[in-house]
Amino acid sequence: MSHNTFGHLFRVTTWGESHGLALGCVVDGCPPGIRFTLKDIQDELDKRKPGQSRFVTQRREPDEVKVLSGVIPDEDGETLISTGTPISMLIENVDQRSKDYGEIARQYRPGHADYTYDVKYGLRDHRGGGRSSARETAARVAAGAIARKVVPGLVVRGALVSMGTKSIDRANWDWDFIGSAENPFFTPDAASVQGFADYLDGIRKSGSSVGAVIEIVAEGVPAGLGAPIYGKLDQDIASNLMSINAVKGVEIGNGFEAARITGEENADEMRMGNDGQPIFLSNHAGGILGGISTGQAVIARFAVKPTSSILTPRKSIDKDGKDVDVMTKGRHDPCVGIRAVPIGEAMVACAIADHYLRHRGQTGR
Amino acid sequence: MSHNTFGHLFRVTTWGESHGLALGCVVDGCPPGIRFTLKDIQDELDKRKPGQSRFVTQRREPDEVKVLSGVIPDEDGETLISTGTPISMLIENVDQRSKDYGEIARQYRPGHADYTYDVKYGLRDHRGGGRSSARETAARVAAGAIARKVVPGLVVRGALVSMGTKSIDRANWDWDFIGSAENPFFTPDAASVQGFADYLDGIRKSGSSVGAVIEIVAEGVPAGLGAPIYGKLDQDIASNLMSINAVKGVEIGNGFEAARITGEENADEMRMGNDGQPIFLSNHAGGILGGISTGQAVIARFAVKPTSSILTPRKSIDKDGKDVDVMTKGRHDPCVGIRAVPIGEAMVACAIADHYLRHRGQTGR
Amino acid sequence: MSHNTFGHLFRVTTWGESHGLALGCVVDGCPPGIRFTLKDIQDELDKRKPGQSRFVTQRREPDEVKVLSGVIPDEDGETLISTGTPISMLIENVDQRSKDYGEIARQYRPGHADYTYDVKYGLRDHRGGGRSSARETAARVAAGAIARKVVPGLVVRGALVSMGTKSIDRANWDWDFIGSAENPFFTPDAASVQGFADYLDGIRKSGSSVGAVIEIVAEGVPAGLGAPIYGKLDQDIASNLMSINAVKGVEIGNGFEAARITGEENADEMRMGNDGQPIFLSNHAGGILGGISTGQAVIARFAVKPTSSILTPRKSIDKDGKDVDVMTKGRHDPCVGIRAVPIGEAMVACAIADHYLRHRGQTGR
Amino acid sequence: MSHNTFGHLFRVTTWGESHGLALGCVVDGCPPGIRFTLKDIQDELDKRKPGQSRFVTQRREPDEVKVLSGVIPDEDGETLISTGTPISMLIENVDQRSKDYGEIARQYRPGHADYTYDVKYGLRDHRGGGRSSARETAARVAAGAIARKVVPGLVVRGALVSMGTKSIDRANWDWDFIGSAENPFFTPDAASVQGFADYLDGIRKSGSSVGAVIEIVAEGVPAGLGAPIYGKLDQDIASNLMSINAVKGVEIGNGFEAARITGEENADEMRMGNDGQPIFLSNHAGGILGGISTGQAVIARFAVKPTSSILTPRKSIDKDGKDVDVMTKGRHDPCVGIRAVPIGEAMVACAIADHYLRHRGQTGR
Repeated sequence: MSHNTFGHLFRVTTWGESHGLALGCVVDGCPPGIRFTLKDIQDELDKRKPGQSRFVTQRREPDEVKVLSGVIPDEDGETLISTGTPISMLIENVDQRSKDYGEIARQYRPGHADYTYDVKYGLRDHRGGGRSSARETAARVAAGAIARKVVPGLVVRGALVSMGTKSIDRANWDWDFIGSAENPFFTPDAASVQGFADYLDGIRKSGSSVGAVIEIVAEGVPAGLGAPIYGKLDQDIASNLMSINAVKGVEIGNGFEAARITGEENADEMRMGNDGQPIFLSNHAGGILGGISTGQAVIARFAVKPTSSILTPRKSIDKDGKDVDVMTKGRHDPCVGIRAVPIGEAMVACAIADHYLRHRGQTGR
Repeated sequence: MSHNTFGHLFRVTTWGESHGLALGCVVDGCPPGIRFTLKDIQDELDKRKPGQSRFVTQRREPDEVKVLSGVIPDEDGETLISTGTPISMLIENVDQRSKDYGEIARQYRPGHADYTYDVKYGLRDHRGGGRSSARETAARVAAGAIARKVVPGLVVRGALVSMGTKSIDRANWDWDFIGSAENPFFTPDAASVQGFADYLDGIRKSGSSVGAVIEIVAEGVPAGLGAPIYGKLDQDIASNLMSINAVKGVEIGNGFEAARITGEENADEMRMGNDGQPIFLSNHAGGILGGISTGQAVIARFAVKPTSSILTPRKSIDKDGKDVDVMTKGRHDPCVGIRAVPIGEAMVACAIADHYLRHRGQTGR
Repeated sequence: MSHNTFGHLFRVTTWGESHGLALGCVVDGCPPGIRFTLKDIQDELDKRKPGQSRFVTQRREPDEVKVLSGVIPDEDGETLISTGTPISMLIENVDQRSKDYGEIARQYRPGHADYTYDVKYGLRDHRGGGRSSARETAARVAAGAIARKVVPGLVVRGALVSMGTKSIDRANWDWDFIGSAENPFFTPDAASVQGFADYLDGIRKSGSSVGAVIEIVAEGVPAGLGAPIYGKLDQDIASNLMSINAVKGVEIGNGFEAARITGEENADEMRMGNDGQPIFLSNHAGGILGGISTGQAVIARFAVKPTSSILTPRKSIDKDGKDVDVMTKGRHDPCVGIRAVPIGEAMVACAIADHYLRHRGQTGR
Repeated sequence: MSHNTFGHLFRVTTWGESHGLALGCVVDGCPPGIRFTLKDIQDELDKRKPGQSRFVTQRREPDEVKVLSGVIPDEDGETLISTGTPISMLIENVDQRSKDYGEIARQYRPGHADYTYDVKYGLRDHRGGGRSSARETAARVAAGAIARKVVPGLVVRGALVSMGTKSIDRANWDWDFIGSAENPFFTPDAASVQGFADYLDGIRKSGSSVGAVIEIVAEGVPAGLGAPIYGKLDQDIASNLMSINAVKGVEIGNGFEAARITGEENADEMRMGNDGQPIFLSNHAGGILGGISTGQAVIARFAVKPTSSILTPRKSIDKDGKDVDVMTKGRHDPCVGIRAVPIGEAMVACAIADHYLRHRGQTGR
C-alpha cells in the first residue's frame, strides 16, 4: 500500500501527530467474530508507554485507547466481538509540552526528519516531530493487539538482544523474564540487566544516546503463508519493520550471517517426525523459504539507530539557510530501541495476520 | 501491492517460470515521452545473464528481450518512446534442460521453496524451481532499465562487497572497474579479484556454495522522495530487495552498525554550502531521514544466502513423506550473490522511480 | 482499493456505524498547503444533515466535525493548512434512539442489508443499520469538502432531476435556486417545488417511499485526467457513485440515451475557438472520452431506489428462519435520494481530486 | 487498482495496442488447482472475434491465445492446471492494416479518445486507436474465461436487449438461442433477429452507427460476496463494465426504473422455502443488497454508445489546431454493442471471482 496504510486484506491506516489532539488507527478487514477485550489492547500499549523507568522519555501519557467502531459487545459486557467492519481506535494526546519544541520549528535536528519533511511538503507540524514522531507507533501497537487474535494459536514475542556495544547471552534466554518488573529493557537475559543499566546510565548522563537490536519470534505461524513474488512473508515483515522510526536494518533467520557461511552450513535439513509430520532439523531460514512460511518459528531482527535527540550540540542549518548548532532539549529516550520491542511485535503480527487472510482467500485453506 | 506486482505509480508485474515458454513483465505507469533503446534494456540483462564465467551457472540463455507494447519508435528507428500505456516485455526461455530436474519433482531440496510451494499451493511446477527460480529476476532487470530513465539524472550502481568470509578493501573502491572484462564478481576492488576467484574455485570444487553482500548506491535522487509512514523510501527499498531470491537481510546507510554507535557518532551534521545549498557532512543515514530522501546518495546493502543447490547430500523428505538424501545436480551458481548485483540495482531504481512519480503527484514538484 | 477505502493518491477511509460512539474518516494523500476552514467542511455536512424539513428523517444530529490531525492552523487562527499527513475527521453520534430498532435485530427488512450482512459476517450491529446505514455518508461528505480544495478552480454541484414519476423542467435550471431556503429538494427548477412537495407528502402519508435521480456537474476539470484502461475517470466516478447506499444505476453524459441514438447525433464535434483553444460544440460524452477528461463539464447521473424502510408491512423472514411480516418504524426519509445530492457531489469531487494527483504524478503536468 | 490492472485478489493486468505486435494479460491470484483447457479460453475469444458477420468489423484476426505461464499440463495433455502463479496470456495481432489510419495520426475523430490521449500524454500510438481500441478487450475475455472456473457453479451469460430504438420482447427470452448460428446479435429473442438485421443494414448503408444495451446475468453466485463499503459487489461490477470502451451507463437490477417506483413495489420480499432455505419472491435488487450478494441471480445492464467511427463527415480539429472535417474510413462495427456481450460477461465474471476470493479470505467461508 502506501502513504499511511499497510496490509492488503488486514489493513491498518494510522493517523495523528505527536502533539495534536489525538492519534489513532483504522483496522480494516478484520474477520468477523474475533473476540478481544479493551484490556488486550491496553496491555500492549502499556508495554510501549513512556514514563515507566528512568531509561525512557519522561513524557507521561496514559495512552488510553477507545474503540469507536467495528465491534459489538458480548453478553459479558467486557469482550468485544468484531463485526467485519472497520475498527477505529483513538488515543488522546494529554501531556503535550509544546513549548519545549519552540526552537526546532526553525532548526533542523540532525538525524530527525525535520529537514526532509520541510523539503518534501514545504511545511510541517514541528511540535514533537509531528507525524514523524515515534508517538505514531502507539496506533500500530493497538492494531497489532487485534492482529494477534486473528490467527489462531499465534504467539508473537520480542526481545532486545543488544544495546550499543553490549549484547545478551543467548544461553540465558528466558521469555518469561521479559515481562518481569525488574526488567526495564525487554532483555530475555536476567544477567544482562545490570550491565545494560550501568551502560545506559552512562550514556544518558553524558547527554548521548545509543542504538539497539531487537529480535521478534512468531510461533504458531501456519505453513504456507506468503504471496510470492512481491508479497513474500519475509518481504512484508521487512517492510513493516523498516517502517518503524529509526530502524536501519532488518534480518530474517540468520540474516547477514548467512552471507558468510556455506550452503551445507546454511541448509535446514528435514526428516519425518514420529507423528508423521515433517521436522526441520534447524532454522537458519527463520521459518520462511521462497517467501512462504515453513511452519517453523518466524524469526526477524531489526537494528534501531541511536536516538537522534541528544543534549550534545551538533552542527546544522535552519529554515533560513543559516548555520546553527542544535542541542535537543525536551524529554527523550536515551535508547529508543527499548520501546521498539512491542512495536516490532505488532508489525510482525500484522504482517502474519494479513498473509493468513490472503492465503485463505487464494487457496481456501 | 501483492502477489506479483510491486510499485504504486510505477508498477511492475512479472510472470513466468524457469522452464516455461517465456517470462516477462508489464511496466505500468511509465510516464509518456521516456526515451530508451532496446540496447539499454539488453545491456542490463546481459549483466545478469548466466553462462558468462565459470563462477556462474552454465545454463546459456540469450535473454533477448522483446518490447511488445507501450512504445512508438522515434524517427531514428532505434529509440523507443513510451506512450504512457503499459510496456510489456518478453524474454523467451531457450535452454531448458528439464530432464536435469526429474528427481526434484518429488524431493524437497533444503533451502529451496519446493516444500513451501507444495504446502501452500498443493502442487507446483518443479522444473528448475518454477516460479521460485531466480530466472524470474530477468524480468525485474528489464523493468529496472526503464525505471532508470524515468528520474532525470539518476544513476544506480551496485557492487559486491563481500563473499563468504572475504571482503573487499573499501579504500580501493573504483566504480569503473566493475564493468571490466577481468572482473567476474562485480567487485569494485581490483585487488580483490584473485582472492575471490581462488576462494570461489575452492567452494565450487568442493561441491559447496557461499553467500555474498551487495551494496547499491543511487546518486541523483532528488530530496523529498518517500511517502511516510508506510511507504517510506527506505521501507520500499528494503521490501524490493528482500523480495529477491535468497536475500536474508537488508540495511540502509550504516545499517546494523548504527545500533552499535552513539547518537553523536551517528548524526549527519549539516552546513550551508558556498553555493547556498545545504550540505551534509556525512551520510550514516544512507540518504534517507524519516523515510524521505535527503538529496544525498541513497545507500542500501543486502545479504544473499549461499546457493541452496549443492552437490553435497543433505537430509530431506519427499512428497510421500519419506526420508531422502538430496543432492542437487543441474547447473548452478556457486555464489548466486554475484548475479544479484544488477537485480539489486534494478529493484532500487524501480523504488526510486515509483516514489519520484508519487512525490510529483502529491506535491506537484 | 477495497473494503472501506477508496481512491489511489487521494485516499479516503471511512469508519463508523449508525449508532456507535462516532463515525469518521481518514483522508490520506491530501497535498500539503491546501487551505480550508472547519466551516468549509461543516457547510457541506449541513447540506446532508437530517432533521431539516418534514421530507427527511427527523433524527437530529448536529454532525459537528472535528479535525484531529494533518493540519496546522494559519496565523488567522481559522484557516487550516494541510501538512501532507493524514487528515482524521470525527463526527460524534448524538441522537441514537437504539430502542427503535429492537425488532430488526432479528428480522430481515426487505431492501436492507440485514440479511446479507448476517449471511456474510455471521453477526452484525443491527442498530440503525449499523455500518450499512446512510449515516456513514457524513464521513464521505467531510472528505469531499477537502477534495474540492485540491483541484484549483474545481466546482462540483448536484441537483435532483426527478423524484418518482415527477421530473424537473430542464429549461428552468438555476443553480442558485438549489441553496435557497424554500427548496427542500435540491431541485434546480423553482417551478417544481410545489409539485414535488405535494407528491412526497402523499407518499409519506401513505407510509410509502419513492426514489430519485440526481445529476452531478463538475466544472473546472482540467483536460487529461483519467487513467485508462482500468482507472478511467468515468469508471471511478461510476464506482464512487454506485458505492452510495441505495444507488442502482449510474450514467455519464447522455448515458442510456446514447444507446438509442446514431453516431452522427452522438458525436461531439469540435472547432477551434477564437482564443485558439479547442471548443466542443456539444457534450453528449459528459466531458470524458476514452476515460480521460476533455476539459468540458463532467456530467454524471445516478438513480436512488426508494427508501426501503416503509410503514407498509412486507413479507420477510427472521434470523431463526421463521416467516414474519416486517414494518419499519423509526425515523426515515420518504425519499433518501434528496439527501444523496451532497453525497454524490462529494464522491465526484473525490474521484476528480484523486485523478488530478495521479495525472500530475504520471505526467508531471 | 489503477491504470491497467483491476481486481484485488483475482487481479488482471492487460497490455497491448490495436496495431502492435501482440496484446495480452496477466491473471494474478488465480487459486491453484483450477482446471481449464485452451479451448475454454478460445471459445470465449471466438465469441467476440471480428469478421464473423456483415454486422461487425471485417478485420480478420484469428485471436489465437497462448498461455505462457502459471499452469502445468494434466496427464491428459489437454487440461491445464493453475499453479497459483501468474497466468500470462498472449494474442498476436495479425491483420493490421495500419495504412487505413494515416490521416487520424493528425486528426481528432469525434467520440474517440484521440484528442484526450494527446492532451494527457502529449503523444499517442494512433494506429487503430492504439491502446484505446476495443481490441484490448480480447485480453479481458481471456481473463474472464479463467474467472468463470474459479467460482464453482458460476454461470455468467449475456444478451443484447436493445439496439438503437429497437428492443427485444423479454417474453421470448431463450438463453439457448444466443449461441445459435442464425443469431449474429446475441439476442435472446429469436423473433427479433430479422428486425435487428434490417435495422442495422439500414444504419450501415447510411454510413451511420447505433448503440445498444446489454444485460448480463450471473447465476450460481454464493450469498455473502461483496466488500462494503467501497468494494461493494455492485460497485465493482459497475466499475468493470464502465471500463469497457464506449459504455456510458450501468444499472444493477431494475436500475433507473427503481427511481420511478415506490418502496412497496421495489421491495424483494422473502419467505422460507420448503427446503428450509430463504426464498426471495422477486429480484428488483439484481441479487445485491448493501453491496453483498443475496444468492439470487446477479443482474447488470450497460449502455454502449454508437460506434464513433462513421462514414459521415463530422467537424473536428487536428493536432495543429486547424479546423477539419473527419470521416472515418477503415473497418468498423456499425454497432460495437454487439461484440460487447462476451466482454461484459468476462468483466462480471472477473468481479465475482475476485469477491469470491476476498470473501473467503476475510471470513474463511
